[in-house]
Amino acid sequence: MKKIEHIGIAVKDLDVSNEVFAALFGKPHYKTEAVESEGVRTSFFKTGPNKIELLEATSADSPIAKFIEKKGEGVHHIAFAVDDIEAEIERLSEEGFIVLNKIPKKGADNKLVAFLHPKSTNGVLIELCQEIKP
Amino acid sequence: MKKIEHIGIAVKDLDVSNEVFAALFGKPHYKTEAVESEGVRTSFFKTGPNKIELLEATSADSPIAKFIEKKGEGVHHIAFAVDDIEAEIERLSEEGFIVLNKIPKKGADNKLVAFLHPKSTNGVLIELCQEIKP
Repeated sequence: MKKIEHIGIAVKDLDVSNEVFAALFGKPHYKTEAVESEGVRTSFFKTGPNKIELLEATSADSPIAKFIEKKGEGVHHIAFAVDDIEAEIERLSEEGFIVLNKIPKKGADNKLVAFLHPKSTNGVLIELCQEIKP
Repeated sequence: MKKIEHIGIAVKDLDVSNEVFAALFGKPHYKTEAVESEGVRTSFFKTGPNKIELLEATSADSPIAKFIEKKGEGVHHIAFAVDDIEAEIERLSEEGFIVLNKIPKKGADNKLVAFLHPKSTNGVLIELCQEIKP
């Protein structure tokens, strides 16, 4: 794993939280993106080599809506950048981690992604992500 | 803020979690450190420009023990590296964030640190940290 690519934070109201994080970083988000398959609207902030992704649910059955209902707003996942997501899925499965996507899926920000179940990672939802090359 | 300096993860058993994260990253932690004033034992992993800090409580009244009791194991805080922590404390206080340490305190890993209350930051406990220069 090369670095923390981003931290995903579940928020109730993206517009309100965009202002909070713009004040925190001293600069606004640089893009927004809807991921219909996940039922989320996202925005991205840069902080050096890392990003913060804010996630707002767009439907009641979105994973983000369920997360907020159970735990409230806060850190939803940590995403690590990898060079070869398929090799990492195989390696981590062999190590005993519960990989939720044996075949990586298309995520936000032009990435192939796969998640590890928090049960196998000390309560932390971990995302692997690999940039999709043009 | 220059980058995510580290993510702090609250764990019940540092030795067990050191093995989990060593398997995740494919390499072991590179140091451990006890911070007596906080009632924690910590270990650090590197992932590119970022670190993961595992935190185990060493006493029942440690903030980490209370956190785990309430929320279970998982992400405890996000730390951002800053150049001038006093200037950031002043700027963020003026922006309306609740700064828990108006005077920065000595944290783990040779850092001056200050925390922002999660109430003012979408449920995320945020740490500012500045390296202590020799």
